[in-house]
Amino acid sequence: MSCQKVTAIIRSNLLEKVEHKLQEMSVRGLSVTKVKSYGEYANFYSKDWMVNNARIEIFIDEARANAIMEAAHVGVEGDGIVAVLPVDKLYRIRTRSEATVDEV
Amino acid sequence: MSCQKVTAIIRSNLLEKVEHKLQEMSVRGLSVTKVKSYGEYANFYSKDWMVNNARIEIFIDEARANAIMEAAHVGVEGDGIVAVLPVDKLYRIRTRSEATVDEV
Amino acid sequence: MSCQKVTAIIRSNLLEKVEHKLQEMSVRGLSVTKVKSYGEYANFYSKDWMVNNARIEIFIDEARANAIMEAAHVGVEGDGIVAVLPVDKLYRIRTRSEATVDEV
Repeated sequence: MSCQKVTAIIRSNLLEKVEHKLQEMSVRGLSVTKVKSYGEYANFYSKDWMVNNARIEIFIDEARANAIMEAAHVGVEGDGIVAVLPVDKLYRIRTRSEATVDEV
Repeated sequence: MSCQKVTAIIRSNLLEKVEHKLQEMSVRGLSVTKVKSYGEYANFYSKDWMVNNARIEIFIDEARANAIMEAAHVGVEGDGIVAVLPVDKLYRIRTRSEATVDEV
Repeated sequence: MSCQKVTAIIRSNLLEKVEHKLQEMSVRGLSVTKVKSYGEYANFYSKDWMVNNARIEIFIDEARANAIMEAAHVGVEGDGIVAVLPVDKLYRIRTRSEATVDEV
């Protein structure tokens, strides 16, 4: 199964829920950054029109991207986005060899 | 119109200018991270040879990447870079459906 | 030589070693973010099961990705990963023109 990079910008308060969902699915690697973002919900008349979101980066097959979407879904503006990007190669530094999607 | 991911590493002090430019162009989603970087301007003899930059991540068509470049341009070393990456899929979590580039 | 984007999630304490290795190889641009991650070493029974890692982002040819791997290698779980992604275009903001991989 070929590997893709999934980047999700989600509500910070749903990060833990998404992380646990991914654990349950045996996703074995994930990294999280804090970002400031705006999307559909932006109020440009406010001085602070950007909000804090969590940005998840993960290397999985696309099928599993749906699980992130389910766990991060509230149904109102500000829910965020999930982007799926192609990956040419993925290496595990410990073994200096290519990693398959089932390993990461 | 197909969607691409644009990552721009720019001068922190020009972030607001770039953000407003993107708003004017009706770009409806954007996220920003603080990064430490070096590029052409690196002074490796200094202990602190990395500087703080802003990293913008945005999903747009490539044509609009030029606007970022114009707004972030000063004309001296340290102006930064703009990278355009292919995107396989982009989903909006609120609607659980694919987003088109005009929506994000 | 075509340009690719290399993202490496590595041990924070090896960041300096990797940075110096890349300087030696005349890599002329790099950015670093702090991320919280888990991978092979995750202990999900611990409350704090994520650790701090460094995330390096760099635009080089794939051949040079190996140098990151060598410098970041310890040989035990938690060494991290290196992902290589295709890039459509890379621009230098200072010159408003495309950058080749030898320049960045």
